[in-house]
Amino acid sequence: MKRELGQQTVFFKNKPKIIGHYSIVGPKEGKGNLREYFSEIEQDDFFGQKTYEKGERVMIERALEGAVKDANLSFDDIKLFLSGDLLNQIISSSYAARKYDIPYAGVFGACSTMAESLALGACLVDGGHFETVACATSSHFSTAERQFRTPLELGSQRPPTSQWTVTGSGADIISSKGSGPIITCATFGKVADFGITDVNNMGAAMAPAAMYTLIAHFKDTKTKPEDYDLILSGDLGKLGSEILIDLMEDKGYKLGLNYKDCGQIIFKRNQNVLMGGSGCGCSATVLNSIVLKKLITGEYKRVLFMATGALLSTLSAQQGESVPGVAHAVVIEGEKNE
Amino acid sequence: MKRELGQQTVFFKNKPKIIGHYSIVGPKEGKGNLREYFSEIEQDDFFGQKTYEKGERVMIERALEGAVKDANLSFDDIKLFLSGDLLNQIISSSYAARKYDIPYAGVFGACSTMAESLALGACLVDGGHFETVACATSSHFSTAERQFRTPLELGSQRPPTSQWTVTGSGADIISSKGSGPIITCATFGKVADFGITDVNNMGAAMAPAAMYTLIAHFKDTKTKPEDYDLILSGDLGKLGSEILIDLMEDKGYKLGLNYKDCGQIIFKRNQNVLMGGSGCGCSATVLNSIVLKKLITGEYKRVLFMATGALLSTLSAQQGESVPGVAHAVVIEGEKNE
Repeated sequence: MKRELGQQTVFFKNKPKIIGHYSIVGPKEGKGNLREYFSEIEQDDFFGQKTYEKGERVMIERALEGAVKDANLSFDDIKLFLSGDLLNQIISSSYAARKYDIPYAGVFGACSTMAESLALGACLVDGGHFETVACATSSHFSTAERQFRTPLELGSQRPPTSQWTVTGSGADIISSKGSGPIITCATFGKVADFGITDVNNMGAAMAPAAMYTLIAHFKDTKTKPEDYDLILSGDLGKLGSEILIDLMEDKGYKLGLNYKDCGQIIFKRNQNVLMGGSGCGCSATVLNSIVLKKLITGEYKRVLFMATGALLSTLSAQQGESVPGVAHAVVIEGEKNE
Repeated sequence: MKRELGQQTVFFKNKPKIIGHYSIVGPKEGKGNLREYFSEIEQDDFFGQKTYEKGERVMIERALEGAVKDANLSFDDIKLFLSGDLLNQIISSSYAARKYDIPYAGVFGACSTMAESLALGACLVDGGHFETVACATSSHFSTAERQFRTPLELGSQRPPTSQWTVTGSGADIISSKGSGPIITCATFGKVADFGITDVNNMGAAMAPAAMYTLIAHFKDTKTKPEDYDLILSGDLGKLGSEILIDLMEDKGYKLGLNYKDCGQIIFKRNQNVLMGGSGCGCSATVLNSIVLKKLITGEYKRVLFMATGALLSTLSAQQGESVPGVAHAVVIEGEKNE
């Protein structure tokens, strides 16, 4: 298909702001590069529950409750909860939503979910339909591994292109009132599929979607890569990031040192994560720790946050399908810019 | 939890309109009560594909293409595709989205997805973020049965409270331009769980969520059941509808003859569907056949369309969880009302 890029970006006039945020991670992530920045590190990766899946739900609950508290709000102030996750029928999000007396709309963009929920949430706040919404997502190494790959007990060897699903959840409160970094625009991505069929090479599968979204974004906003203090992709990992840099160079865009990938920065090199971190929680916890903190202090003025998702299921892989990707992006600017 | 209902309804000022719609169903649905109203009846429930799952994807593609054509538009005019379905990681929607050169945002509300996507789509059009969006969903008896219940080859006996997943897909084009029924408001539902653990009794699991959404809607809009020509629930089925009528009566609202359930009207009594139809495609194809046609001709002036979803997965059931439900609603009014 000949792809026309552009006209994918929505500009916000009414300054939807991130007035509260929270990140919670598991023990392995808590030993990684960003350990000083997370809101909470839990040492029990069951999160006090009997199963990992119930634990993942508790992560979302704690992230949401932490973000509401960070915004100095009560749950009565939250008018809509937008959330999704990797588990079948997004049960982590839906069962978390059951706990609260707020309307809930489930979303799904695989590991692009943090950006998707922020983009939709910003639209709803900007359009005046909701004063305040909450956006969240999560992933858990053990729930993802046993749902998508192999039983944990097998201890399967991991292929060299594989990534490590982050155990973590991030949540944001977006509001037209209050104070915080501003979401100034959102670029909604198209689904891209370059025919990758290796389900252990998600970075390669998602890189084309990331390229399309970045190019559409730069065209729509008439910006260049160097106009951002940070361009952050979600979980392309080491290989996927390199592919993205190459693909962008082919199209005439040079991604410089301001380009980083959450999957590459969350873990340390000696943590045996091969190509890096992945999962909805990867970009969600990086955004909701170091990135938002630096936007708030003014160290970053303008960040392009683009989360990337691989839209497969075990069944689509079993039926011989390749892996389509999607990437959504939001621009977040420090309030001090003004 | 004490539940506060109300402040869940968003009112649209800029008249987002349904300017195109389409419904496609399988052979069994094509022998049901609404056979004259569907846009397309396909006799091959593989939809020309090798697997039912690939077939379900083709259904969404045909529904989307049909709706775009019905709106007299080309795909260039569609700025965002909002879709979700019952399959793990909503692969029917995501793989369908791969075929088109338009941005895609996945949504998930189980069988409430048609209403959720219409509600979000109407917000995005009303807020001026997108001129025209497409909303769709699907379900397929054979893909749902083998994913959620038992292999088709087993021919398991069905419990008396069970429902029959509709093979069908519906799509709508919402736009600020053009002509068609107007979405005047949307009520976003809260998750409700009354402790039903029988996964063969979805109607009972979803009825409480439907009650909460209806009451919130009536409060927010200051309307009564008799103010609508039709109040349509998604797929509560015979038992779930009766529970809803009882629950509403307890709360002081009398649902009269203008209340109907898509699951109860789509099939004929002699089609051996027990409590009736279910699945995302149930409400989607009923809305996008008889209901929109009657709104267009003026036979209906004001319809309250509320789709209901059960937010479980096979794993949540295996881990002993009860089944939470959610219901979202939109009011659709004929253009001739004005």
